[in-house]
Amino acid sequence: MKNFTFKKLAFTLASVFVISSCSAQEDETQWRKLDPDHTVLLTLPQGKVVIELAPQFSPKHVAQFEKLSRAGFYDNTKFYRVIDGFVAQAGPEDESEKDKSVPILKIEEEWQTDKNFTFSKVQDNDMFAEQTGFKDGFAIGTNPSEHKAWLAHCPGVLAMARSSEPNTASSHFYFVNGQAPRYLDRIMTIFGRVVYGMNHIQSIQRTSVIDGEHAVDARDHTPILSMQMMNDVPAAEKIFIEVEVTKGPVFEKRIEKRRARPNEFFYKKPPPVLDVCQVPIRSRLISAK
Amino acid sequence: MKNFTFKKLAFTLASVFVISSCSAQEDETQWRKLDPDHTVLLTLPQGKVVIELAPQFSPKHVAQFEKLSRAGFYDNTKFYRVIDGFVAQAGPEDESEKDKSVPILKIEEEWQTDKNFTFSKVQDNDMFAEQTGFKDGFAIGTNPSEHKAWLAHCPGVLAMARSSEPNTASSHFYFVNGQAPRYLDRIMTIFGRVVYGMNHIQSIQRTSVIDGEHAVDARDHTPILSMQMMNDVPAAEKIFIEVEVTKGPVFEKRIEKRRARPNEFFYKKPPPVLDVCQVPIRSRLISAK
Repeated sequence: MKNFTFKKLAFTLASVFVISSCSAQEDETQWRKLDPDHTVLLTLPQGKVVIELAPQFSPKHVAQFEKLSRAGFYDNTKFYRVIDGFVAQAGPEDESEKDKSVPILKIEEEWQTDKNFTFSKVQDNDMFAEQTGFKDGFAIGTNPSEHKAWLAHCPGVLAMARSSEPNTASSHFYFVNGQAPRYLDRIMTIFGRVVYGMNHIQSIQRTSVIDGEHAVDARDHTPILSMQMMNDVPAAEKIFIEVEVTKGPVFEKRIEKRRARPNEFFYKKPPPVLDVCQVPIRSRLISAK
Repeated sequence: MKNFTFKKLAFTLASVFVISSCSAQEDETQWRKLDPDHTVLLTLPQGKVVIELAPQFSPKHVAQFEKLSRAGFYDNTKFYRVIDGFVAQAGPEDESEKDKSVPILKIEEEWQTDKNFTFSKVQDNDMFAEQTGFKDGFAIGTNPSEHKAWLAHCPGVLAMARSSEPNTASSHFYFVNGQAPRYLDRIMTIFGRVVYGMNHIQSIQRTSVIDGEHAVDARDHTPILSMQMMNDVPAAEKIFIEVEVTKGPVFEKRIEKRRARPNEFFYKKPPPVLDVCQVPIRSRLISAK
């Protein structure tokens, strides 16, 4: 009996936790290909990361980032500011010619919504937004009362750093690597998200230490080996990713199931609410066509 | 002018982001030593992790975990189930003698509060709790209407795995390594939290792959080199950590400052709300006395 319980423990737990982190049935999930014109391959010493850019939300930031990536601008720059549970930030060395060479961007922190605006709603009365949900695979917040929507600072988003003034971003960027810093929503420009290799983002060398620790030597900062548009990557090295479609009845059903937690593992049901940043959007690797 | 802007960009950004992730003034922060009787040193191939246990909240789980750790039970076991953005789970091999040898625990998922219950409140009407806050350094949720409080599933918490039945935990445990899975609050037993070395938890080998990827070979799973009570660690290898005191006027002031975001970087102020899991509690390394 005890034996049985323990066997059951391991297997039930495994299956339930998998279900709770991606509850769609495999055969139901709808997939879409990433647009190769707006997909980035970031190569780190520890592995490869694929990023989906968001030209539909932040066109100027995406255009600049793509231009810089195509020019090899980020190659051999480093993640110089990496705080566990917050962000991993990279860019060229301060005051270098590279750093000074890039046009400054007008912030693209939110957009106006009209009557035709649609998205897949996840939650009302999220602390940071009247509503949250997904649009084109990206987590968003929206305040219908203000006719505004914006990309939400969930783990894995890619955003441009800036100075205190809103319109000061240029090339320095950060990935969110910890609990969603939603207080940055609507004051920073998010322009992409990691769809593959988030584990490698999580293992970027931290540069921030606690009191009493030795500072991290700049030579140990994680370098960007290359930042390439996927279209420019040699065929043999391309990575083809498809991502879950975040609209329509299949996705809505998944959201409702996640909210309801029907699995018996939830012997007491949690509140029927969802943190939009705790709804993992699935990716899969496909073969080249 | 452009030069100036860019110089300013890098430095202002660095300082503001540091402020926003730990806004207490150094000289004001109050510190407490960890209780060496309830502090754990987890040694991974990539580095050392210090864990503060919570006997005041989950006494039976802590007692069992301490007993197992002192016996070397976890040494050379592996993180066999690691999902990016969710949990890193470890324990002895299923159906091994080790696995079967451990008493089963009654769940300690929440506790009854009375009129004398105090904590440092962070937020009302958090999605998952009537109130959130900190108690003894741990993030908690509480529903005063039910006279209940519980430890919250923030990144870095240590909790015991279980089967579908509530009272089935024994030795398998997990660290939360991603966006807080607060839907597990009140149905799992949290009994500790990482206070040092969370970067090493984040770099534990993922065992979960996406569709289309090769499975991870079990030989590549991250092993636990040792799990020791800090008291049992040889003097030269002990790590002495102090953590921020999470009650009293200094901490309350820090919380209110974090909520208000007075720094000019916040050119538009975010909603005056705080996600309790996005309030980093500070640690510092001290010398042996």
